[in-house]
Amino acid sequence: MTTPTPAPGRRIRLTVAYDGTDFAGWQVQPGLSTIQGELERALAAIEGAPVAVAGSGRTDAGVHALAQVAACTIQNRIPEDNLRRAINRLLPRSIRVLEAREVHPAFHPRFDALAKTYEYRFWREEICPPLQRFAVYHYPYPLDEARMAALAPLYEGEHDFTAFSAADQKDELGLSKVRRIFSARLAREGPELVFRVRGNGFLKHMVRMLAGALIEAGKGNLDAEALHVRLKPGFPGKAGPAVPGRGLCLVSVEYPPTPPGAC
Amino acid sequence: MTTPTPAPGRRIRLTVAYDGTDFAGWQVQPGLSTIQGELERALAAIEGAPVAVAGSGRTDAGVHALAQVAACTIQNRIPEDNLRRAINRLLPRSIRVLEAREVHPAFHPRFDALAKTYEYRFWREEICPPLQRFAVYHYPYPLDEARMAALAPLYEGEHDFTAFSAADQKDELGLSKVRRIFSARLAREGPELVFRVRGNGFLKHMVRMLAGALIEAGKGNLDAEALHVRLKPGFPGKAGPAVPGRGLCLVSVEYPPTPPGAC
Repeated sequence: MTTPTPAPGRRIRLTVAYDGTDFAGWQVQPGLSTIQGELERALAAIEGAPVAVAGSGRTDAGVHALAQVAACTIQNRIPEDNLRRAINRLLPRSIRVLEAREVHPAFHPRFDALAKTYEYRFWREEICPPLQRFAVYHYPYPLDEARMAALAPLYEGEHDFTAFSAADQKDELGLSKVRRIFSARLAREGPELVFRVRGNGFLKHMVRMLAGALIEAGKGNLDAEALHVRLKPGFPGKAGPAVPGRGLCLVSVEYPPTPPGAC
Repeated sequence: MTTPTPAPGRRIRLTVAYDGTDFAGWQVQPGLSTIQGELERALAAIEGAPVAVAGSGRTDAGVHALAQVAACTIQNRIPEDNLRRAINRLLPRSIRVLEAREVHPAFHPRFDALAKTYEYRFWREEICPPLQRFAVYHYPYPLDEARMAALAPLYEGEHDFTAFSAADQKDELGLSKVRRIFSARLAREGPELVFRVRGNGFLKHMVRMLAGALIEAGKGNLDAEALHVRLKPGFPGKAGPAVPGRGLCLVSVEYPPTPPGAC
């Protein structure tokens, strides 16, 4: 793990909420609308020069965030609150910067992150209310929810999540696909079944595949034994299908109280 | 007030929820996507013939409904629950039929309605969460909310609401613009300021203008005296601007326990 050499200028940490419905995900992609792309466009307009924005991690197409964390380096001396307002004026209403704060030049939203929390929401009733439809996965079919809730904590601890990651996953932290899950719980909340997972890092599609395997368990296709096997190194193939992005939300990213290297 | 002669066939009462964001309102309009138009299209596909759908009232572009009530007459013998499912399969996910129920042939969703309840939601914090943005009107500017809450009940009772209706309003019930408001209350609910109004009928743009006048009061431009004057017959002009449709939701429509003329 290497920390990039800080560029001269002000390092700005951004806390960002977004409705991922109309975006092709976080990461800049040519010809597609992305969260990172919109932030870089807005910041470039303020800075009068290209600005690179780094995120705590990528989110897939359709995935939402209550508080994604990003960072950029700018020369502009604009006060933090004015910067936040200026960015928001230039962004679509589907993306809002909740906070802009100057931090240590070495701050990196991905490498410094200690934990991330995601929520995956299944809508369990026969009819999904129209105004909720982009924030949940409508799954009204029979499921053994008690069994799913019993299996979810099996994800906790340090495991090799290769079987719970996209086939094309390129791990920038090296080849390891070992991650530590601090908590993984499934609970019924009214019409919703909510899978809440907090860990030190997540592979591509990982939360959607963890949730997808719970659905398989709820359908009776997977038991504790089979789940254990899929969490061991060398499991051939994938644990199961990923559930759709729209049910997923990045809730928070946690950092040390004082960023590493802070004066 | 006349009740149309019932056509032969089964009279079906539909309870409908919708996200009005992508629609040009309830009423069929050539070349535009509307809730009534989508329902008529779905029902015609099931019936194999044109089907007219009547609503309890029109909603404007961008206005939502938790439980709009509509009715149509069909010959098809499909059971109620199968009909509901068949309509939902043919509708976009932004419109859901919550219930389809066979009722007396004379049932009319507008003429038989006793009361309707609307909610108008203002988002009062500086930043409007992206996933909420189509269901609220973001109004983060200073307002005397206590004054607004004190004035809202002045709408209660029977008044001439001409000043609170669109200039082009053609009242199908006759020329009267007198309506009875059973309750009109404004309350803070966390980050939202919610105006809840229940009445025996509403003119075009009326709820949005009632809410708009409260905003004027909150800004200090309107007091109880001025509001009283606007509720009297013969007030020249309009009470004030209408607030945007997206903050408005038709919550419920009430009918007598037994529809008039029921066997």
